[in-house]
Amino acid sequence: MLEKLKEEVFQANMRLYQSGLVLFNWGNVSGIDQEKSLVAIKPSGVDYDTMRPEDIVIIDLWGKVIWGELNPSSDTETHLELYRNFEHIGGICHTHSKSATAWAQARRGIPCFGTTHADAFYGEVPVTEPLTEEQIADEYELNTGRVIVEKFNDADIGPSQMPAVLVAHHGPFTWGKNADDAVKNAIILEECADIALKTISLNHAVEQISRPLLDKHYQRKHGKNAYYGQG
Amino acid sequence: MLEKLKEEVFQANMRLYQSGLVLFNWGNVSGIDQEKSLVAIKPSGVDYDTMRPEDIVIIDLWGKVIWGELNPSSDTETHLELYRNFEHIGGICHTHSKSATAWAQARRGIPCFGTTHADAFYGEVPVTEPLTEEQIADEYELNTGRVIVEKFNDADIGPSQMPAVLVAHHGPFTWGKNADDAVKNAIILEECADIALKTISLNHAVEQISRPLLDKHYQRKHGKNAYYGQG
Amino acid sequence: MLEKLKEEVFQANMRLYQSGLVLFNWGNVSGIDQEKSLVAIKPSGVDYDTMRPEDIVIIDLWGKVIWGELNPSSDTETHLELYRNFEHIGGICHTHSKSATAWAQARRGIPCFGTTHADAFYGEVPVTEPLTEEQIADEYELNTGRVIVEKFNDADIGPSQMPAVLVAHHGPFTWGKNADDAVKNAIILEECADIALKTISLNHAVEQISRPLLDKHYQRKHGKNAYYGQG
Amino acid sequence: MLEKLKEEVFQANMRLYQSGLVLFNWGNVSGIDQEKSLVAIKPSGVDYDTMRPEDIVIIDLWGKVIWGELNPSSDTETHLELYRNFEHIGGICHTHSKSATAWAQARRGIPCFGTTHADAFYGEVPVTEPLTEEQIADEYELNTGRVIVEKFNDADIGPSQMPAVLVAHHGPFTWGKNADDAVKNAIILEECADIALKTISLNHAVEQISRPLLDKHYQRKHGKNAYYGQG
Repeated sequence: MLEKLKEEVFQANMRLYQSGLVLFNWGNVSGIDQEKSLVAIKPSGVDYDTMRPEDIVIIDLWGKVIWGELNPSSDTETHLELYRNFEHIGGICHTHSKSATAWAQARRGIPCFGTTHADAFYGEVPVTEPLTEEQIADEYELNTGRVIVEKFNDADIGPSQMPAVLVAHHGPFTWGKNADDAVKNAIILEECADIALKTISLNHAVEQISRPLLDKHYQRKHGKNAYYGQG
Repeated sequence: MLEKLKEEVFQANMRLYQSGLVLFNWGNVSGIDQEKSLVAIKPSGVDYDTMRPEDIVIIDLWGKVIWGELNPSSDTETHLELYRNFEHIGGICHTHSKSATAWAQARRGIPCFGTTHADAFYGEVPVTEPLTEEQIADEYELNTGRVIVEKFNDADIGPSQMPAVLVAHHGPFTWGKNADDAVKNAIILEECADIALKTISLNHAVEQISRPLLDKHYQRKHGKNAYYGQG
Repeated sequence: MLEKLKEEVFQANMRLYQSGLVLFNWGNVSGIDQEKSLVAIKPSGVDYDTMRPEDIVIIDLWGKVIWGELNPSSDTETHLELYRNFEHIGGICHTHSKSATAWAQARRGIPCFGTTHADAFYGEVPVTEPLTEEQIADEYELNTGRVIVEKFNDADIGPSQMPAVLVAHHGPFTWGKNADDAVKNAIILEECADIALKTISLNHAVEQISRPLLDKHYQRKHGKNAYYGQG
Repeated sequence: MLEKLKEEVFQANMRLYQSGLVLFNWGNVSGIDQEKSLVAIKPSGVDYDTMRPEDIVIIDLWGKVIWGELNPSSDTETHLELYRNFEHIGGICHTHSKSATAWAQARRGIPCFGTTHADAFYGEVPVTEPLTEEQIADEYELNTGRVIVEKFNDADIGPSQMPAVLVAHHGPFTWGKNADDAVKNAIILEECADIALKTISLNHAVEQISRPLLDKHYQRKHGKNAYYGQG
């Protein structure tokens, strides 16, 4: 069942592990089959060293296990809330990568200080509001997804142009056109978070890049007139 | 004699070395057989590259060598004081890992700034009082254990929920249900110490996470209603 | 056609990738045949893992593709502007390496704080003026080259003695006697940028080294009386 | 001629390279045959990847080449000045390792903030006075050795207990009982320099450890009553 999607999600999880962004069994990646509205996701608490493609769990958009014998990731409800609200995304990745997590713990969005960032993220990577005591007590993982969606709605950010968010006190979620693309964005986010940390240490008053430079770089790679690559 | 424990302690020491947390022959890991009240520990000053399982030394809880031809780790008395007082621990690990040691040298506990930390440590990782001149002059390693135990007693911290401590001016000790688990906690501690360093540099006024969020994450993995993993 | 140059440029690009200074398909290296006034450059958006020597594109100094089936790097116009103005350089390298990019994003030149820097760069590595809205809107990559050339002209810096520049809000370009040398300078620049970051954190008031020390080290390796090495 | 010493010095240079502390052909290690008063040292500007044991140069204490076809390291005069004045040392290592170089560039000695440092260096690692214009102009490398020796004489520091120094605006020199031990001290110095950088960032007012703790740790490993290891 959905062998290709399971294989893609398995490979994306392994790529995440090999990237060095996660320790032990931390982190998780999922992918969606948009037509069937089914999601493939990493099982909970399984070590990457022993994980096999057939350990990937298939669930529907409300969390019902459709295929597989293991429990899905404990962060599954966060993933599903994002799939239900961000219609065009094909994969989601969650890590506790060090520099991005530091920004999340400091409750600061990652400003767009340069073209490395602008090539992937159209502006400041936002940070959510902290969850309230009530949001923590009940449906914690679902509420984690909700504060992300709220942030994007309230600030009128399009998830296609901003494939990343920092959950306050927690860490980053990234997404993309598929599971592999979500992992790629997690790697870029960590790189940008680290460069931004160093930038701040050199110049506390540094401002984000101008709108024209942001537009130029983002559109050069992602706009309809993109001219980067062999397209 | 205690072949399985010796092998476990040997493997845990090698895992520590391979983790990159220690240089040369630095660091040491031990494990205890609770029923027999015997401890297996790394020999003193032996290189990891040449260490063999049969080099692991077996001692009783008062430091008498029961089996083995090498001197046990020079930090043995610290380990034993912890085993005598923290009844439920099965293994202990000592490192001078860089970020955790920096917090210890700065005499600051590592605040719980996020869920990465809360997943493993129930609150701020404490730092001991410095040893007095008298405590240094006589029974130094034993007194190192004593200031750790005092810190946990005075602050009413349970060693099961807080499997780590920073010895002021020195470095971290971690523990766990066995030797391998102690090493795992040493790796997580270093990761959290590093992220906390970056967090502080971004926001000097950042506060620890709320009690409900701490409870949620710690209990999600460790409480009796834990739902993380395949348990 | 120009097989040797293509091979050199291919190898220099692979060396850049293996150095860890670039992620994915980021970065680009070119080399020039001075006699024929032809430039070999990395194709745009091709992964290093799959790139072959025959993917290297040959262009003339005005950007016309002379040989090859792929689009040249999107940064080609920046390279060409440098070749047209810095007559004695044989290769150019562009990266977003972390520490050098942080200085570029902070809009600070990298001061010459020590002999490691003086061995390769004769003084502070300069940072360009930011591009204006007009310079961004039209001929962006060409204008990136122009602000570099302007910086060197205005500050009367010789490109042979200063084989590196930081483009504000963007990142470093380096050059050298050939493509491989340009990559080598990119690696040294990142090392110096990182050490300078740490130096600043220890002493915000630290000044650049004295002119005699700068002269001594730079001339020891690069001057006509150089006595470093086996020459 | 002195095959064993050449092999030791060759291996120590290779160990330095493999440690990641030096790039390209940077850094150099030497060793001395005390009875014959002959020094074996790395040749100048030779890549580690292609260096062979027979490339090691043998010189006397006044720099005359006794054996070998290559030029000795450009830093040879600094090594010789140390051998002539620090009678009991058997090997010397010079690097531009990042954190130690940052302290040297900031013209700050590395304070003894903890037991990791005290295990190897008996107190603050000193930084030299900067060379004067005259000292730079003539006999630069020899004068580099002279300011090191002056620092140790003026501050009454014994080179056996303090096998490291920072040359202002330049970088570290370390030494030891032989070439390999000098490299080991270079690795430890870089580790301590990095931890000290992090410590300062957490607590600018942190003081060095107490004399009793310094004595305890240094003597535990190096004193006549040392009880660390299997000795």
